[in-house]
Amino acid sequence: MPTKQSTAILCLNGPNLNMLGKREPEIYGSQSLADIETATQDLSKQLKVKVEFRQSNHEGELVDWIQGAGGQFAALIVNAGALTHTSVALLDALRLFSGPVVEIHLSNIFRREPFRHRSFISEAADGVICGFGKDSYLLGLRAAVELIKRVK
Amino acid sequence: MPTKQSTAILCLNGPNLNMLGKREPEIYGSQSLADIETATQDLSKQLKVKVEFRQSNHEGELVDWIQGAGGQFAALIVNAGALTHTSVALLDALRLFSGPVVEIHLSNIFRREPFRHRSFISEAADGVICGFGKDSYLLGLRAAVELIKRVK
Amino acid sequence: MPTKQSTAILCLNGPNLNMLGKREPEIYGSQSLADIETATQDLSKQLKVKVEFRQSNHEGELVDWIQGAGGQFAALIVNAGALTHTSVALLDALRLFSGPVVEIHLSNIFRREPFRHRSFISEAADGVICGFGKDSYLLGLRAAVELIKRVK
Amino acid sequence: MPTKQSTAILCLNGPNLNMLGKREPEIYGSQSLADIETATQDLSKQLKVKVEFRQSNHEGELVDWIQGAGGQFAALIVNAGALTHTSVALLDALRLFSGPVVEIHLSNIFRREPFRHRSFISEAADGVICGFGKDSYLLGLRAAVELIKRVK
Amino acid sequence: MPTKQSTAILCLNGPNLNMLGKREPEIYGSQSLADIETATQDLSKQLKVKVEFRQSNHEGELVDWIQGAGGQFAALIVNAGALTHTSVALLDALRLFSGPVVEIHLSNIFRREPFRHRSFISEAADGVICGFGKDSYLLGLRAAVELIKRVK
Amino acid sequence: MPTKQSTAILCLNGPNLNMLGKREPEIYGSQSLADIETATQDLSKQLKVKVEFRQSNHEGELVDWIQGAGGQFAALIVNAGALTHTSVALLDALRLFSGPVVEIHLSNIFRREPFRHRSFISEAADGVICGFGKDSYLLGLRAAVELIKRVK
Amino acid sequence: MPTKQSTAILCLNGPNLNMLGKREPEIYGSQSLADIETATQDLSKQLKVKVEFRQSNHEGELVDWIQGAGGQFAALIVNAGALTHTSVALLDALRLFSGPVVEIHLSNIFRREPFRHRSFISEAADGVICGFGKDSYLLGLRAAVELIKRVK
Amino acid sequence: MPTKQSTAILCLNGPNLNMLGKREPEIYGSQSLADIETATQDLSKQLKVKVEFRQSNHEGELVDWIQGAGGQFAALIVNAGALTHTSVALLDALRLFSGPVVEIHLSNIFRREPFRHRSFISEAADGVICGFGKDSYLLGLRAAVELIKRVK
Amino acid sequence: MPTKQSTAILCLNGPNLNMLGKREPEIYGSQSLADIETATQDLSKQLKVKVEFRQSNHEGELVDWIQGAGGQFAALIVNAGALTHTSVALLDALRLFSGPVVEIHLSNIFRREPFRHRSFISEAADGVICGFGKDSYLLGLRAAVELIKRVK
Amino acid sequence: MPTKQSTAILCLNGPNLNMLGKREPEIYGSQSLADIETATQDLSKQLKVKVEFRQSNHEGELVDWIQGAGGQFAALIVNAGALTHTSVALLDALRLFSGPVVEIHLSNIFRREPFRHRSFISEAADGVICGFGKDSYLLGLRAAVELIKRVK
Amino acid sequence: MPTKQSTAILCLNGPNLNMLGKREPEIYGSQSLADIETATQDLSKQLKVKVEFRQSNHEGELVDWIQGAGGQFAALIVNAGALTHTSVALLDALRLFSGPVVEIHLSNIFRREPFRHRSFISEAADGVICGFGKDSYLLGLRAAVELIKRVK
Amino acid sequence: MPTKQSTAILCLNGPNLNMLGKREPEIYGSQSLADIETATQDLSKQLKVKVEFRQSNHEGELVDWIQGAGGQFAALIVNAGALTHTSVALLDALRLFSGPVVEIHLSNIFRREPFRHRSFISEAADGVICGFGKDSYLLGLRAAVELIKRVK
Repeated sequence: MPTKQSTAILCLNGPNLNMLGKREPEIYGSQSLADIETATQDLSKQLKVKVEFRQSNHEGELVDWIQGAGGQFAALIVNAGALTHTSVALLDALRLFSGPVVEIHLSNIFRREPFRHRSFISEAADGVICGFGKDSYLLGLRAAVELIKRVK
Repeated sequence: MPTKQSTAILCLNGPNLNMLGKREPEIYGSQSLADIETATQDLSKQLKVKVEFRQSNHEGELVDWIQGAGGQFAALIVNAGALTHTSVALLDALRLFSGPVVEIHLSNIFRREPFRHRSFISEAADGVICGFGKDSYLLGLRAAVELIKRVK
Repeated sequence: MPTKQSTAILCLNGPNLNMLGKREPEIYGSQSLADIETATQDLSKQLKVKVEFRQSNHEGELVDWIQGAGGQFAALIVNAGALTHTSVALLDALRLFSGPVVEIHLSNIFRREPFRHRSFISEAADGVICGFGKDSYLLGLRAAVELIKRVK
Repeated sequence: MPTKQSTAILCLNGPNLNMLGKREPEIYGSQSLADIETATQDLSKQLKVKVEFRQSNHEGELVDWIQGAGGQFAALIVNAGALTHTSVALLDALRLFSGPVVEIHLSNIFRREPFRHRSFISEAADGVICGFGKDSYLLGLRAAVELIKRVK
Repeated sequence: MPTKQSTAILCLNGPNLNMLGKREPEIYGSQSLADIETATQDLSKQLKVKVEFRQSNHEGELVDWIQGAGGQFAALIVNAGALTHTSVALLDALRLFSGPVVEIHLSNIFRREPFRHRSFISEAADGVICGFGKDSYLLGLRAAVELIKRVK
Repeated sequence: MPTKQSTAILCLNGPNLNMLGKREPEIYGSQSLADIETATQDLSKQLKVKVEFRQSNHEGELVDWIQGAGGQFAALIVNAGALTHTSVALLDALRLFSGPVVEIHLSNIFRREPFRHRSFISEAADGVICGFGKDSYLLGLRAAVELIKRVK
Repeated sequence: MPTKQSTAILCLNGPNLNMLGKREPEIYGSQSLADIETATQDLSKQLKVKVEFRQSNHEGELVDWIQGAGGQFAALIVNAGALTHTSVALLDALRLFSGPVVEIHLSNIFRREPFRHRSFISEAADGVICGFGKDSYLLGLRAAVELIKRVK
Repeated sequence: MPTKQSTAILCLNGPNLNMLGKREPEIYGSQSLADIETATQDLSKQLKVKVEFRQSNHEGELVDWIQGAGGQFAALIVNAGALTHTSVALLDALRLFSGPVVEIHLSNIFRREPFRHRSFISEAADGVICGFGKDSYLLGLRAAVELIKRVK
Repeated sequence: MPTKQSTAILCLNGPNLNMLGKREPEIYGSQSLADIETATQDLSKQLKVKVEFRQSNHEGELVDWIQGAGGQFAALIVNAGALTHTSVALLDALRLFSGPVVEIHLSNIFRREPFRHRSFISEAADGVICGFGKDSYLLGLRAAVELIKRVK
Repeated sequence: MPTKQSTAILCLNGPNLNMLGKREPEIYGSQSLADIETATQDLSKQLKVKVEFRQSNHEGELVDWIQGAGGQFAALIVNAGALTHTSVALLDALRLFSGPVVEIHLSNIFRREPFRHRSFISEAADGVICGFGKDSYLLGLRAAVELIKRVK
Repeated sequence: MPTKQSTAILCLNGPNLNMLGKREPEIYGSQSLADIETATQDLSKQLKVKVEFRQSNHEGELVDWIQGAGGQFAALIVNAGALTHTSVALLDALRLFSGPVVEIHLSNIFRREPFRHRSFISEAADGVICGFGKDSYLLGLRAAVELIKRVK
Repeated sequence: MPTKQSTAILCLNGPNLNMLGKREPEIYGSQSLADIETATQDLSKQLKVKVEFRQSNHEGELVDWIQGAGGQFAALIVNAGALTHTSVALLDALRLFSGPVVEIHLSNIFRREPFRHRSFISEAADGVICGFGKDSYLLGLRAAVELIKRVK
């Protein structure tokens, strides 16, 4: 757990993101979530922040984590996966978080099925980044760091 | 666990209601869920019933609790929070409960975002009370007690 | 007409509510509007407020009464009946009333025909209570009394 | 007021039907409502029933009349005019009437503007007759008389 | 085939109407289509017109008959059954018929499933009569006879 | 009642417009309907026409007035308030009026709630003026006077 | 270009308005845009303001002009023609303009095709005037002048 | 856990299916999920495959199980219960499973409430079987076995 | 024609199913309808029932066959092909059949074009089986046999 | 029946096209289908192809003909009339035809009633030609001949 | 510029059509707009008319050209490209043109994305030709020449 | 104009973006487009690419620029402003561009008016970045550079 609030960022990953790289590489790329975390941690050192990665297939656990992030993390990076399109509970939890929220997606959700065009998460996010695969995480981290600076 | 079925009421609280009073007091008031429970317990004594409060951010856990309420509780008071608008599973669970169901909300959901205007819970509830903050709980308790009387 | 504003509450009843108890008891119960008023008056004495009941089948008369309620009544309890779903005029009148407004319905309108799911009244009401039959009035009175206290 | 319930039929006419024959004869024909009533009364004698014609531009008055028809009239013939498409209050009142209800219209409402395609009245009517001008009334009277026979 | 155009009326019946009286009497009554034809023929003699009944389960055959009715029949009475709601071909055929068209239905289609609320037939019909069971045919015949008189 | 048809204009005001200036001045301005009438009468003298102001909260009364306006008034200026969005009866009445009809609104209804974006009145109005507060009346009067000139 | 900001008003005209009077006089009247400008300039002298007329078939050019109007003109009168219904770019440009904006149309757009019922311009306009032909411009000028006075 | 992949099938059951037979037998039949499993196991022996039954009220747990099924089970039979209509997370998990997927339901979901007509599961299923009660499971097992054969 | 009602099942096939195996094998498989019938007949012998296969491209003929099935066949298996999505006449005919109805499709219609997601047939079917190619018929036969047993 | 596949084209005509020229010449022109066929045959000789004209009011017969066209005709020209907008069966049949398909209409269907704007045929057609009356056939023939050339 | 009105036709091409043949040949073919023009000019000589090709990416310029075509060209052939689906301004301009208008498209727009199914151009076009690639232009030219003949 | 394709990126800005910083800083920030360009150019040097900024209020000019970018620029960064939501022409132009396309927005368009939730641009973009103000440009540049690397 980070000791200094302003430099810790929580990166939350929703359902099925633990399966990255195991199947359908033509859609999601061949990198696993661990690969992405490694790249993100590399960048975090360069940007002088700490990033904590968590993944869950359970909406309730993600809500728990967001609730617990207050006072512990300066910003959230959220790839809610399928819950992006169905979870009002995540929206409400994110609204209770006082720091910046960056919504990210590996794929460009606006080019996929119509039910993926609506994001409940967006209504609580400062900004959205999607479609850049692994780079969505790296760009999301940069965005979060900049947003934290503005808040300060 | 109550020993006498007819005088026990289960009050279920959905996602993020454990955060009451911690943030956004202009919307949800400054009272915590514990404060509300205290007020509700005070009234329950006056009305000579027992009330048990539970809260969960997990849809599945709420379903578990509703399933387990049969034979244990005479009525349900349900503030499903965000799940109100998305959970068919809660609807199905509530339909399996044979006693009265009272749906409550702190805020007037019909004055909020359009996606909060639809309640799946309502289709299994005897009645709905919303918009009165803490008093939604107290009124819900009174309603439940009256509904139990009618059933008997 | 009440002499002291803060202790008088106007309870308005819309079209066809004068027929309560005369037909369709399986839907609306066997009590007449007079029976309901009696029960409500009993509670009002207990709560130390005055309640005035009025009923009209005319949208315009209900608008007149709401306009006239300002300065005369501390709160409104409104069961607008069928006008709930069609009357923007009632909505506008209620918005002009400065005190609390409690919307009530005998039946749970959200379990009836789709055109009864939309309430124009809700957009001007502090809260909504529906589905408890006669008790909707009693709970509505309690809610109104509590809302008046908060305003003071 | 008729003295024998089973042979009296109330024919209600909604807003603007008092203007029949005064304007737009290409749409509504050149006959006035009085002309139509005369033809209807002629037929009523032949059919050995009594018919009472009433017209109002006020939704509330029409509701009052329907409420008062119970016990006084054996059937209702209703040309609700524009209120056909907007009045849930009329629907609710008609549902409280225990005898047959025949909905009629001078013009074929299904060939007019889309907002005239929906009838709230139909949901409480035994049958609908529209598009035959004056004959809609005569056919409606015959229909009502037959429906009364079936009930007996 | 009638020899004098102005006094012959064709009554067309669409899919499944040949099954009348055989099943579901609680919906469609216990009379068969033959019973209805007998009653209609009785009335036709009284009204001094000839009526020809035809029934088909085939949209194409109904279109053929309507096309052939020109010059042979003075008016059409059409109970298109299920094709009412799906057949643009019938609509187009009816528009080619120069005499009056009366649309009839046994049941009040506006109180049934939503997909039965739309009638393509109505757009080519002078008027509509529905909900009166067998009497829909008798009223339809009277309506057709009156419409023929107006045309002359 | 005016003696010379061509120079009299009837200005009708619908529900709640009698409350102007009493509440919500930030929306409707601080002027009362009487203030607006005074300004309108001043302009009417300058334009050499007579204007009669009427207000009602009753749809039926407004319909009565419009029906009675034929032959008495050369044009109508109509601020139907909330009935703008719900009353087909007013639409039908206005269609029966043979002179010019000018629809006005104090606020720009197209910037308010979606249900205020639809006007049934517009379908019977020559033109629409909205959003200019008191000046909507003055501009409406000028528009009506010009329309009367064209008709002549 | 006007030298004194407060007395200059820019009147913008969108696609095809340069064709006024050349075709379809039954819809748009027989007057050309030049005729309308002449009448408007006559009124502007009477009202002691300057008006500049511009017309373009190019959305981009209209946007340029609106952007350039800041500091040069005290108000805008905008008849955006077909772009009214399709241009978010014009909406955004108008929102950047700090003075009053009056939306006008020659015809009553609410009586035309459904796609003309939506105006993006309205969301940035103080008020709307439509349906009065040439007089829409004159009324729009009066409205603009009054709005300028209020701002001062 | 099965030792040979090609002969093991996982049968997943979603929320509230553990309550089968306990309530609402008129809808879901009087058999419990254990009864259904017994019948299914009997058939599985006959078909020479192994079937493993699991049930959860938790969307996340179901996702976990589907993720874990890869390499362990040759096919999935899924009765997702209420989650059928709301869970994109289940859809995504099922898409990651490389073997056949058979969607089953006890009741004919297309004859129930409209919100049960949409299945997110169907988009990842080879086929759908619904409406046959217990037999939906037996037919689903046969279907799965046949699909496995085709894959081989 | 079968001599013993309870053991005969009619399998109806709608438009274009006679073309199976002739084209688009990637969608519908390489088997012809005759191949499917052979496999189905093989199973029918095993299940000790008789099955009669019919195919028509004519909606009316299919309706005729369903009407004639009463008293001749104990159950219907219906693959209505394209008519599934457009024919209310088939729905009505099926509702008149008193025995079990099993709806089947070769492909998973819920993964195809949106207009194939709606089935009018489903509203009259006990259950639905789709997506298993030839096996949809075999599973449908098993389902029908089981449903017949329950009825007995 | 043509002997050489590549030079024969089948022109199919749906319901009511046999009535061309008999009624409503202002819409469909005064030429009969025979006149159109004559003109088309004249052009076919010039283009050195054979054309066969067929017309039917029966959807099933049209499906039969399309099924039979494979191997017999090199291309289809289809004016499906009213079935254009309702027949999925025709769409499916056309998809089974391996040669070019040209959809034609006499009138511009996009300027007619909204339900004529959707064509199921278009989804299986190479191209669409509508609005040119008789010339739609001649242009359609030219288009078909060119498409055949490309295929070769 | 042509000297004799009746024999000159203007062929307008909207955004991106200047890129034809440069990319995506699988969709739009490998021919450039110049190739198409050459083929069209060849045909125009054969048909003894003159054709002028223009292309612009600017909606305003296309509107200018259509306005200027009056008196200069006898007919318009319009491939508005993407503006087909978004430009009311083009629709209005085309309505002002008194000669025939032929709408063409290279691809069958009804088989592409849903937003390409609506054409504003169609509402002002005599007819539509789409899906034939280069031949859409040649057929369009033939159609235009025939339409000019009819007008004369 | 850049001489080496792979290192030049074109950044296009749509309508009203030239007004950045001049008005509504609470929405769009206080920086001008020049300020943003400066920051972007600073980053481009660090990333060793060249960036060219262009802005236009004209859809056609933006289309021209995108068409001209092929072979000149390795990637596009597009902030289409209001045209994002209305321009199919831009979508088509972007689809013709063979390199990466990054869509950016200053504000989070998904939290603004509903008509801003749809982006035609997204359908041709590799990814989307919105809501980070100036940083949307910097992140977009980083994203574009990474996408170029992948292509190589």
